[in-house]
Amino acid sequence: MAALGQRLTAVTTRDARMDVHIVPGVCQHQPAFDVMRGEETQLAGLVASQPHYSGAVCLPGTHAKWAHLDNGRITGFNTFMSGELYKLLSQDSVLKHSVLKHSVAGGDLTDQTQRSAYLDGIDTALATPERITAELFGIRARDLLDTRLPSDTSRTAVLSARLSGLVLGLELASATASLPENSLVTLIGDAVLCQRYQSALEHLGYRVSIAANADMILAGLGQIHHARPANRTVT
Amino acid sequence: MAALGQRLTAVTTRDARMDVHIVPGVCQHQPAFDVMRGEETQLAGLVASQPHYSGAVCLPGTHAKWAHLDNGRITGFNTFMSGELYKLLSQDSVLKHSVLKHSVAGGDLTDQTQRSAYLDGIDTALATPERITAELFGIRARDLLDTRLPSDTSRTAVLSARLSGLVLGLELASATASLPENSLVTLIGDAVLCQRYQSALEHLGYRVSIAANADMILAGLGQIHHARPANRTVT
Repeated sequence: MAALGQRLTAVTTRDARMDVHIVPGVCQHQPAFDVMRGEETQLAGLVASQPHYSGAVCLPGTHAKWAHLDNGRITGFNTFMSGELYKLLSQDSVLKHSVLKHSVAGGDLTDQTQRSAYLDGIDTALATPERITAELFGIRARDLLDTRLPSDTSRTAVLSARLSGLVLGLELASATASLPENSLVTLIGDAVLCQRYQSALEHLGYRVSIAANADMILAGLGQIHHARPANRTVT
Repeated sequence: MAALGQRLTAVTTRDARMDVHIVPGVCQHQPAFDVMRGEETQLAGLVASQPHYSGAVCLPGTHAKWAHLDNGRITGFNTFMSGELYKLLSQDSVLKHSVLKHSVAGGDLTDQTQRSAYLDGIDTALATPERITAELFGIRARDLLDTRLPSDTSRTAVLSARLSGLVLGLELASATASLPENSLVTLIGDAVLCQRYQSALEHLGYRVSIAANADMILAGLGQIHHARPANRTVT
Protein backbone atom coordinates (compact mmCIF):
# COMPACT_ATOMS: atom_id res chain seq x y z
CA MET A 1 0.00 0.00 0.00
CA ALA A 2 3.04 2.25 0.38
CA ALA A 3 3.03 2.57 -3.42
CA LEU A 4 -0.11 4.69 -3.18
CA GLY A 5 1.80 7.32 -1.25
CA GLN A 6 4.61 7.29 -3.79
CA ARG A 7 2.31 7.86 -6.75
CA LEU A 8 0.30 10.86 -5.60
CA THR A 9 -0.66 13.52 -8.10
CA ALA A 10 0.03 17.00 -6.73
CA VAL A 11 -2.72 19.58 -7.20
CA THR A 12 -1.71 23.21 -7.60
CA THR A 13 -3.41 25.48 -5.09
CA ARG A 14 -3.61 29.26 -4.70
CA ASP A 15 -3.03 29.06 -0.95
CA ALA A 16 0.53 27.94 -0.13
CA ARG A 17 -0.67 26.52 3.21
CA MET A 18 -2.72 23.90 1.29
CA ASP A 19 -0.84 20.76 0.28
CA VAL A 20 -3.31 18.78 -1.84
CA HIS A 21 -2.68 15.45 -3.59
CA ILE A 22 -4.87 12.96 -5.43
CA VAL A 23 -4.48 9.32 -4.39
CA PRO A 24 -4.18 7.04 -7.45
CA GLY A 25 -6.65 4.21 -7.96
CA VAL A 26 -5.72 0.62 -8.70
CA CYS A 27 -6.23 -1.14 -12.03
CA GLN A 28 -6.04 -4.81 -12.93
CA HIS A 29 -5.47 -6.34 -16.39
CA GLN A 30 -5.46 -10.04 -15.50
CA PRO A 31 -7.35 -12.34 -14.98
CA ALA A 32 -10.05 -9.76 -15.74
CA PHE A 33 -9.99 -6.03 -16.41
CA ASP A 34 -11.02 -4.14 -13.31
CA VAL A 35 -10.60 -0.75 -11.68
CA MET A 36 -10.75 0.58 -8.12
CA ARG A 37 -11.10 4.29 -7.41
CA GLY A 38 -11.41 5.07 -3.73
CA GLU A 39 -11.62 1.65 -2.13
CA GLU A 40 -7.80 1.34 -2.21
CA THR A 41 -7.72 4.01 0.50
CA GLN A 42 -10.02 1.91 2.71
CA LEU A 43 -7.80 -1.12 2.12
CA ALA A 44 -4.77 0.99 3.07
CA GLY A 45 -6.61 1.79 6.29
CA LEU A 46 -7.06 -1.89 7.07
CA VAL A 47 -3.39 -2.54 6.39
CA ALA A 48 -2.42 0.40 8.63
CA SER A 49 -3.80 -1.50 11.61
CA GLN A 50 -3.03 -5.02 10.32
CA PRO A 51 0.15 -4.72 8.20
CA HIS A 52 0.32 -8.44 7.50
CA TYR A 53 -3.38 -9.02 6.72
CA SER A 54 -3.94 -11.98 4.40
CA GLY A 55 -7.39 -12.99 3.15
CA ALA A 56 -10.60 -11.66 1.70
CA VAL A 57 -11.86 -8.11 2.12
CA CYS A 58 -15.28 -7.04 0.85
CA LEU A 59 -16.31 -3.41 0.38
CA PRO A 60 -20.10 -3.44 -0.21
CA GLY A 61 -21.70 -0.63 -2.17
CA THR A 62 -22.92 0.50 -5.59
CA HIS A 63 -20.01 -1.36 -7.16
CA ALA A 64 -19.01 -3.86 -4.48
CA LYS A 65 -15.33 -4.77 -4.39
CA TRP A 66 -13.86 -8.07 -3.24
CA ALA A 67 -10.10 -7.87 -2.80
CA HIS A 68 -7.69 -10.59 -1.83
CA LEU A 69 -4.73 -9.49 0.26
CA ASP A 70 -1.55 -11.39 0.90
CA ASN A 71 0.62 -10.06 3.72
CA GLY A 72 -0.84 -6.57 3.33
CA ARG A 73 -0.64 -6.44 -0.48
CA ILE A 74 -3.55 -6.62 -2.95
CA THR A 75 -3.10 -9.74 -5.11
CA GLY A 76 -6.35 -9.38 -7.08
CA PHE A 77 -9.84 -7.97 -6.94
CA ASN A 78 -13.30 -8.19 -8.49
CA THR A 79 -16.03 -5.59 -8.81
CA PHE A 80 -19.70 -6.63 -8.76
CA MET A 81 -22.47 -4.27 -9.86
CA SER A 82 -24.78 -5.52 -7.10
CA GLY A 83 -25.70 -2.21 -5.49
CA GLU A 84 -26.42 -0.50 -8.79
CA LEU A 85 -28.35 -3.54 -10.05
CA TYR A 86 -30.50 -3.57 -6.92
CA LYS A 87 -31.25 0.13 -7.29
CA LEU A 88 -32.14 -0.16 -11.00
CA LEU A 89 -34.37 -3.18 -10.42
CA SER A 90 -36.17 -1.78 -7.39
CA GLN A 91 -36.67 1.73 -8.77
CA ASP A 92 -36.84 1.49 -12.57
CA SER A 93 -37.90 -2.05 -13.56
CA VAL A 94 -41.26 -3.84 -13.51
CA LEU A 95 -40.32 -4.93 -9.97
CA LYS A 96 -40.87 -1.39 -8.68
CA HIS A 97 -44.56 -2.31 -8.38
CA SER A 98 -43.71 -5.14 -5.96
CA VAL A 99 -40.84 -3.89 -3.77
CA LEU A 100 -39.93 -0.98 -1.53
CA LYS A 101 -38.53 2.13 -3.13
CA HIS A 102 -35.81 2.74 -0.53
CA SER A 103 -32.34 1.34 -0.86
CA VAL A 104 -31.25 -2.08 0.37
CA ALA A 105 -29.42 -0.41 3.23
CA GLY A 106 -32.73 0.68 4.74
CA GLY A 107 -33.82 -2.70 6.05
CA ASP A 108 -32.13 -4.39 8.98
CA LEU A 109 -33.93 -7.74 8.57
CA THR A 110 -34.99 -8.04 12.22
CA ASP A 111 -38.38 -9.31 10.99
CA GLN A 112 -38.18 -13.11 10.67
CA THR A 113 -40.33 -13.36 7.53
CA GLN A 114 -38.14 -10.81 5.77
CA ARG A 115 -34.99 -12.52 7.02
CA SER A 116 -36.21 -15.88 5.68
CA ALA A 117 -37.08 -14.33 2.32
CA TYR A 118 -33.62 -12.74 2.19
CA LEU A 119 -31.75 -15.96 3.01
CA ASP A 120 -33.94 -17.95 0.61
CA GLY A 121 -32.96 -15.45 -2.09
CA ILE A 122 -29.29 -15.96 -1.16
CA ASP A 123 -29.62 -19.76 -1.35
CA THR A 124 -31.54 -19.65 -4.63
CA ALA A 125 -28.93 -17.48 -6.35
CA LEU A 126 -26.10 -19.65 -4.98
CA ALA A 127 -27.76 -22.85 -6.19
CA THR A 128 -28.87 -21.67 -9.64
CA PRO A 129 -27.05 -18.43 -10.57
CA GLU A 130 -27.96 -18.96 -14.25
CA ARG A 131 -31.65 -18.56 -13.32
CA ILE A 132 -31.19 -15.07 -11.88
CA THR A 133 -33.19 -13.11 -14.47
CA ALA A 134 -35.99 -15.69 -14.24
CA GLU A 135 -35.93 -15.46 -10.43
CA LEU A 136 -36.04 -11.66 -10.70
CA PHE A 137 -39.18 -11.77 -12.85
CA GLY A 138 -40.43 -14.40 -10.40
CA ILE A 139 -40.67 -11.67 -7.75
CA ARG A 140 -43.32 -9.95 -9.87
CA ALA A 141 -45.07 -13.28 -10.49
CA ARG A 142 -45.04 -14.10 -6.76
CA ASP A 143 -46.60 -10.74 -6.03
CA LEU A 144 -49.44 -11.63 -8.42
CA LEU A 145 -49.89 -15.31 -7.52
CA ASP A 146 -48.35 -16.36 -4.19
CA THR A 147 -51.17 -16.56 -1.65
CA ARG A 148 -48.68 -17.28 1.16
CA LEU A 149 -47.31 -13.74 1.01
CA PRO A 150 -48.58 -11.31 3.65
CA SER A 151 -51.39 -9.19 2.26
CA ASP A 152 -50.59 -6.12 4.36
CA THR A 153 -47.89 -3.49 3.90
CA SER A 154 -45.14 -5.94 4.90
CA ARG A 155 -45.67 -7.67 1.54
CA THR A 156 -43.34 -5.31 -0.34
CA ALA A 157 -40.76 -5.56 2.46
CA VAL A 158 -40.72 -9.36 2.11
CA LEU A 159 -40.37 -9.18 -1.67
CA SER A 160 -37.64 -6.52 -1.29
CA ALA A 161 -35.75 -8.82 1.05
CA ARG A 162 -35.96 -11.60 -1.53
CA LEU A 163 -34.71 -9.25 -4.27
CA SER A 164 -31.82 -8.17 -2.06
CA GLY A 165 -30.99 -11.82 -1.32
CA LEU A 166 -31.04 -12.78 -5.01
CA VAL A 167 -28.75 -9.92 -6.04
CA LEU A 168 -26.28 -10.40 -3.18
CA GLY A 169 -26.45 -14.19 -3.52
CA LEU A 170 -25.35 -13.89 -7.13
CA GLU A 171 -22.33 -11.84 -6.00
CA LEU A 172 -21.51 -14.37 -3.28
CA ALA A 173 -21.82 -17.30 -5.71
CA SER A 174 -18.79 -15.88 -7.50
CA ALA A 175 -16.94 -14.10 -4.68
CA THR A 176 -16.98 -17.08 -2.32
CA ALA A 177 -16.41 -19.76 -4.98
CA SER A 178 -12.75 -20.21 -4.08
CA LEU A 179 -13.08 -19.21 -0.42
CA PRO A 180 -12.71 -22.16 1.98
CA GLU A 181 -15.54 -22.56 4.47
CA ASN A 182 -14.96 -20.86 7.82
CA SER A 183 -12.60 -18.30 6.21
CA LEU A 184 -12.60 -14.81 7.63
CA VAL A 185 -14.12 -12.06 5.47
CA THR A 186 -13.41 -8.47 6.54
CA LEU A 187 -16.20 -6.09 5.57
CA ILE A 188 -15.59 -2.35 5.19
CA GLY A 189 -18.56 -0.14 4.41
CA ASP A 190 -21.91 1.27 5.46
CA ALA A 191 -22.90 -0.30 8.79
CA VAL A 192 -26.42 -1.51 7.83
CA LEU A 193 -25.22 -2.85 4.48
CA CYS A 194 -22.34 -4.66 6.21
CA GLN A 195 -24.83 -6.27 8.61
CA ARG A 196 -26.77 -7.57 5.64
CA TYR A 197 -23.61 -9.05 4.12
CA GLN A 198 -22.71 -10.49 7.51
CA SER A 199 -26.07 -12.30 7.76
CA ALA A 200 -25.52 -13.90 4.37
CA LEU A 201 -21.86 -14.79 4.91
CA GLU A 202 -22.47 -16.34 8.33
CA HIS A 203 -25.43 -18.25 6.86
CA LEU A 204 -22.95 -19.69 4.32
CA GLY A 205 -20.42 -20.67 6.99
CA TYR A 206 -17.92 -17.79 6.90
CA ARG A 207 -16.56 -15.71 9.76
CA VAL A 208 -17.01 -11.96 9.49
CA SER A 209 -15.19 -8.95 10.89
CA ILE A 210 -16.60 -5.47 10.26
CA ALA A 211 -14.33 -2.43 10.10
CA ALA A 212 -15.95 1.02 10.33
CA ASN A 213 -15.90 2.79 6.99
CA ALA A 214 -14.85 6.24 8.23
CA ASP A 215 -12.09 4.79 10.42
CA MET A 216 -10.60 2.92 7.44
CA ILE A 217 -10.72 5.99 5.18
CA LEU A 218 -8.99 8.19 7.78
CA ALA A 219 -6.41 5.53 8.64
CA GLY A 220 -5.82 4.92 4.93
CA LEU A 221 -5.29 8.60 4.19
CA GLY A 222 -2.92 8.80 7.19
CA GLN A 223 -0.98 5.77 5.95
CA ILE A 224 -0.71 7.24 2.44
CA HIS A 225 0.31 10.64 3.86
CA HIS A 226 3.16 9.08 5.84
CA ALA A 227 4.35 7.12 2.79
CA ARG A 228 4.72 10.31 0.73
CA PRO A 229 8.24 11.07 -0.43
CA ALA A 230 9.46 14.25 1.31
CA ASN A 231 10.03 15.99 -2.01
CA ARG A 232 6.33 15.83 -2.94
CA THR A 233 5.54 18.88 -0.83
CA VAL A 234 3.93 21.59 -2.93
CA THR A 235 6.20 24.61 -3.14
CA MET B 1 -54.92 -23.58 -26.63
CA ALA B 2 -58.65 -24.01 -27.17
CA ALA B 3 -59.06 -23.18 -23.48
CA LEU B 4 -58.12 -19.58 -24.23
CA GLY B 5 -61.21 -19.24 -26.43
CA GLN B 6 -63.40 -20.73 -23.71
CA ARG B 7 -62.22 -18.33 -21.04
CA LEU B 8 -62.67 -15.00 -22.76
CA THR B 9 -63.87 -12.04 -20.74
CA ALA B 10 -66.64 -10.16 -22.56
CA VAL B 11 -66.35 -6.39 -22.64
CA THR B 12 -69.54 -4.35 -22.68
CA THR B 13 -69.69 -1.93 -25.61
CA ARG B 14 -72.04 0.91 -26.52
CA ASP B 15 -72.16 -0.18 -30.16
CA ALA B 16 -74.01 -3.49 -30.59
CA ARG B 17 -72.04 -4.24 -33.75
CA MET B 18 -68.85 -4.53 -31.66
CA ASP B 19 -68.17 -7.93 -30.05
CA VAL B 20 -65.13 -7.40 -27.84
CA HIS B 21 -63.44 -9.97 -25.60
CA ILE B 22 -60.23 -10.03 -23.56
CA VAL B 23 -58.04 -13.12 -24.03
CA PRO B 24 -56.91 -14.49 -20.65
CA GLY B 25 -53.22 -14.84 -19.88
CA VAL B 26 -51.57 -17.95 -18.50
CA CYS B 27 -50.20 -18.36 -14.98
CA GLN B 28 -47.97 -21.04 -13.51
CA HIS B 29 -47.58 -21.96 -9.84
CA GLN B 30 -45.06 -24.81 -10.13
CA PRO B 31 -42.11 -25.31 -10.40
CA ALA B 32 -41.87 -21.51 -10.21
CA PHE B 33 -44.44 -18.72 -10.14
CA ASP B 34 -44.72 -17.14 -13.56
CA VAL B 35 -47.21 -15.21 -15.68
CA MET B 36 -47.76 -14.71 -19.40
CA ARG B 37 -49.95 -11.90 -20.71
CA GLY B 38 -50.02 -11.70 -24.48
CA GLU B 39 -47.48 -14.31 -25.53
CA GLU B 40 -50.11 -17.06 -25.16
CA THR B 41 -51.80 -15.60 -28.25
CA GLN B 42 -48.57 -15.95 -30.24
CA LEU B 43 -48.23 -19.54 -29.05
CA ALA B 44 -51.84 -20.19 -30.12
CA GLY B 45 -50.82 -18.87 -33.55
CA LEU B 46 -47.99 -21.38 -33.75
CA VAL B 47 -50.32 -24.19 -32.75
CA ALA B 48 -52.88 -23.05 -35.35
CA SER B 49 -50.39 -23.99 -38.07
CA GLN B 50 -48.68 -26.85 -36.22
CA PRO B 51 -51.38 -28.42 -33.99
CA HIS B 52 -49.06 -31.14 -32.69
CA TYR B 53 -45.97 -28.96 -32.07
CA SER B 54 -43.71 -30.38 -29.36
CA GLY B 55 -40.55 -28.64 -28.17
CA ALA B 56 -39.15 -25.30 -27.15
CA VAL B 57 -40.55 -21.93 -28.20
CA CYS B 58 -38.81 -18.68 -27.33
CA LEU B 59 -40.47 -15.27 -27.49
CA PRO B 60 -37.67 -12.69 -27.13
CA GLY B 61 -38.47 -9.24 -25.75
CA THR B 62 -38.52 -7.07 -22.64
CA HIS B 63 -39.52 -10.11 -20.62
CA ALA B 64 -38.45 -13.02 -22.79
CA LYS B 65 -40.58 -16.18 -22.51
CA TRP B 66 -39.40 -19.74 -23.04
CA ALA B 67 -42.31 -22.15 -23.29
CA HIS B 68 -42.23 -25.89 -23.66
CA LEU B 69 -45.03 -27.38 -25.70
CA ASP B 70 -46.09 -31.01 -25.84
CA ASN B 71 -48.42 -31.92 -28.69
CA GLY B 72 -49.69 -28.34 -28.95
CA ARG B 73 -50.15 -27.77 -25.21
CA ILE B 74 -48.02 -25.58 -22.91
CA THR B 75 -46.40 -27.81 -20.28
CA GLY B 76 -44.34 -25.08 -18.60
CA PHE B 77 -42.67 -21.73 -19.17
CA ASN B 78 -40.05 -19.35 -17.81
CA THR B 79 -39.77 -15.58 -18.08
CA PHE B 80 -36.35 -13.91 -18.19
CA MET B 81 -35.94 -10.16 -17.65
CA SER B 82 -33.22 -9.98 -20.31
CA GLY B 83 -34.63 -7.21 -22.49
CA GLU B 84 -35.44 -4.97 -19.55
CA LEU B 85 -32.06 -5.70 -17.94
CA TYR B 86 -30.25 -4.78 -21.15
CA LYS B 87 -32.19 -1.53 -21.39
CA LEU B 88 -31.55 -0.55 -17.76
CA LEU B 89 -27.85 -1.36 -18.00
CA SER B 90 -27.26 0.39 -21.31
CA GLN B 91 -29.31 3.49 -20.52
CA ASP B 92 -29.25 4.03 -16.76
CA SER B 93 -26.17 2.33 -15.29
CA VAL B 94 -22.47 3.24 -15.25
CA LEU B 95 -22.23 1.26 -18.51
CA LYS B 96 -24.10 4.00 -20.38
CA HIS B 97 -20.72 5.74 -20.77
CA SER B 98 -19.33 2.73 -22.65
CA VAL B 99 -22.16 1.38 -24.81
CA LEU B 100 -24.65 2.54 -27.43
CA LYS B 101 -27.87 4.10 -26.26
CA HIS B 102 -30.13 2.31 -28.73
CA SER B 103 -31.82 -0.97 -27.94
CA VAL B 104 -30.27 -4.38 -28.54
CA ALA B 105 -32.57 -4.83 -31.52
CA GLY B 106 -30.75 -2.06 -33.37
CA GLY B 107 -27.60 -4.01 -34.24
CA ASP B 108 -27.55 -6.81 -36.75
CA LEU B 109 -23.99 -7.99 -35.97
CA THR B 110 -22.79 -8.07 -39.56
CA ASP B 111 -19.49 -6.55 -38.36
CA GLN B 112 -17.13 -9.39 -37.42
CA THR B 113 -15.53 -7.65 -34.43
CA GLN B 114 -18.98 -6.97 -32.98
CA ARG B 115 -20.10 -10.51 -33.74
CA SER B 116 -17.04 -11.94 -31.97
CA ALA B 117 -17.62 -9.68 -28.95
CA TYR B 118 -21.27 -10.82 -28.86
CA LEU B 119 -20.46 -14.54 -29.05
CA ASP B 120 -17.65 -14.16 -26.50
CA GLY B 121 -20.22 -12.56 -24.18
CA ILE B 122 -22.55 -15.53 -24.79
CA ASP B 123 -19.79 -18.05 -24.02
CA THR B 124 -18.63 -16.16 -20.92
CA ALA B 125 -22.13 -16.06 -19.42
CA LEU B 126 -22.70 -19.72 -20.24
CA ALA B 127 -19.40 -20.77 -18.65
CA THR B 128 -19.58 -18.63 -15.50
CA PRO B 129 -23.12 -17.32 -14.98
CA GLU B 130 -22.34 -16.53 -11.33
CA ARG B 131 -19.80 -13.93 -12.52
CA ILE B 132 -22.39 -11.94 -14.47
CA THR B 133 -22.37 -8.76 -12.35
CA ALA B 134 -18.54 -8.79 -12.35
CA GLU B 135 -18.51 -9.26 -16.13
CA LEU B 136 -20.97 -6.39 -16.47
CA PHE B 137 -18.70 -4.03 -14.53
CA GLY B 138 -15.86 -5.50 -16.60
CA ILE B 139 -17.34 -3.77 -19.67
CA ARG B 140 -16.65 -0.42 -18.01
CA ALA B 141 -13.16 -1.58 -16.97
CA ARG B 142 -12.40 -2.79 -20.52
CA ASP B 143 -13.44 0.58 -21.86
CA LEU B 144 -10.90 2.20 -19.53
CA LEU B 145 -8.05 -0.33 -19.87
CA ASP B 146 -8.30 -2.64 -22.89
CA THR B 147 -5.91 -1.30 -25.54
CA ARG B 148 -7.10 -3.94 -28.06
CA LEU B 149 -10.51 -2.26 -28.37
CA PRO B 150 -11.01 -0.04 -31.43
CA SER B 151 -10.42 3.60 -30.58
CA ASP B 152 -12.94 4.97 -33.08
CA THR B 153 -16.72 5.16 -32.88
CA SER B 154 -17.07 1.39 -33.32
CA ARG B 155 -15.73 1.00 -29.75
CA THR B 156 -19.15 1.47 -28.13
CA ALA B 157 -20.73 -0.87 -30.70
CA VAL B 158 -18.25 -3.62 -29.75
CA LEU B 159 -18.87 -3.12 -26.03
CA SER B 160 -22.65 -3.05 -26.66
CA ALA B 161 -22.36 -6.36 -28.49
CA ARG B 162 -20.52 -7.85 -25.52
CA LEU B 163 -23.19 -6.53 -23.11
CA SER B 164 -25.90 -8.02 -25.29
CA GLY B 165 -24.04 -11.35 -25.38
CA LEU B 166 -23.60 -11.44 -21.60
CA VAL B 167 -27.27 -10.72 -20.90
CA LEU B 168 -28.61 -13.15 -23.49
CA GLY B 169 -25.97 -15.76 -22.57
CA LEU B 170 -27.23 -15.70 -19.00
CA GLU B 171 -30.76 -16.40 -20.24
CA LEU B 172 -29.54 -19.22 -22.47
CA ALA B 173 -27.48 -20.75 -19.64
CA SER B 174 -30.79 -21.46 -17.91
CA ALA B 175 -33.18 -21.84 -20.85
CA THR B 176 -31.04 -24.37 -22.73
CA ALA B 177 -29.84 -26.28 -19.64
CA SER B 178 -32.19 -29.19 -20.25
CA LEU B 179 -32.40 -28.83 -24.02
CA PRO B 180 -30.55 -31.60 -25.90
CA GLU B 181 -28.04 -30.38 -28.47
CA ASN B 182 -29.40 -30.07 -32.00
CA SER B 183 -32.95 -29.53 -30.66
CA LEU B 184 -35.20 -27.19 -32.61
CA VAL B 185 -36.04 -23.86 -31.02
CA THR B 186 -38.89 -21.87 -32.58
CA LEU B 187 -38.47 -18.12 -32.17
CA ILE B 188 -41.43 -15.74 -32.35
CA GLY B 189 -40.74 -12.03 -32.11
CA ASP B 190 -39.11 -8.93 -33.57
CA ALA B 191 -37.13 -9.95 -36.68
CA VAL B 192 -33.77 -8.34 -35.74
CA LEU B 193 -33.96 -9.58 -32.16
CA CYS B 194 -34.81 -13.09 -33.41
CA GLN B 195 -31.73 -12.99 -35.68
CA ARG B 196 -29.60 -12.17 -32.67
CA TYR B 197 -31.06 -15.12 -30.73
CA GLN B 198 -30.57 -17.30 -33.80
CA SER B 199 -26.84 -16.43 -33.98
CA ALA B 200 -26.39 -17.41 -30.34
CA LEU B 201 -28.48 -20.59 -30.50
CA GLU B 202 -26.80 -21.86 -33.68
CA HIS B 203 -23.42 -21.04 -32.10
CA LEU B 204 -24.45 -23.33 -29.23
CA GLY B 205 -25.53 -26.16 -31.53
CA TYR B 206 -29.29 -25.71 -31.74
CA ARG B 207 -31.52 -25.56 -34.80
CA VAL B 208 -33.71 -22.47 -35.16
CA SER B 209 -36.99 -21.72 -36.89
CA ILE B 210 -38.29 -18.14 -36.91
CA ALA B 211 -42.02 -17.41 -37.10
CA ALA B 212 -43.11 -13.87 -37.97
CA ASN B 213 -44.52 -12.07 -34.95
CA ALA B 214 -47.53 -10.44 -36.65
CA ASP B 215 -48.49 -13.69 -38.40
CA MET B 216 -48.53 -15.56 -35.09
CA ILE B 217 -50.62 -12.90 -33.35
CA LEU B 218 -53.21 -12.85 -36.15
CA ALA B 219 -53.31 -16.64 -36.43
CA GLY B 220 -53.57 -16.89 -32.62
CA LEU B 221 -56.46 -14.45 -32.43
CA GLY B 222 -58.16 -16.34 -35.25
CA GLN B 223 -57.67 -19.64 -33.45
CA ILE B 224 -59.07 -18.21 -30.21
CA HIS B 225 -62.00 -16.62 -32.05
CA HIS B 226 -62.98 -19.96 -33.58
CA ALA B 227 -62.75 -21.70 -30.20
CA ARG B 228 -65.28 -19.31 -28.62
CA PRO B 229 -68.46 -20.91 -27.32
CA ALA B 230 -71.40 -19.64 -29.41
CA ASN B 231 -73.15 -18.26 -26.32
CA ARG B 232 -70.36 -15.76 -25.63
CA THR B 233 -71.75 -13.34 -28.20
CA VAL B 234 -72.48 -9.99 -26.56
CA THR B 235 -76.16 -9.27 -26.59
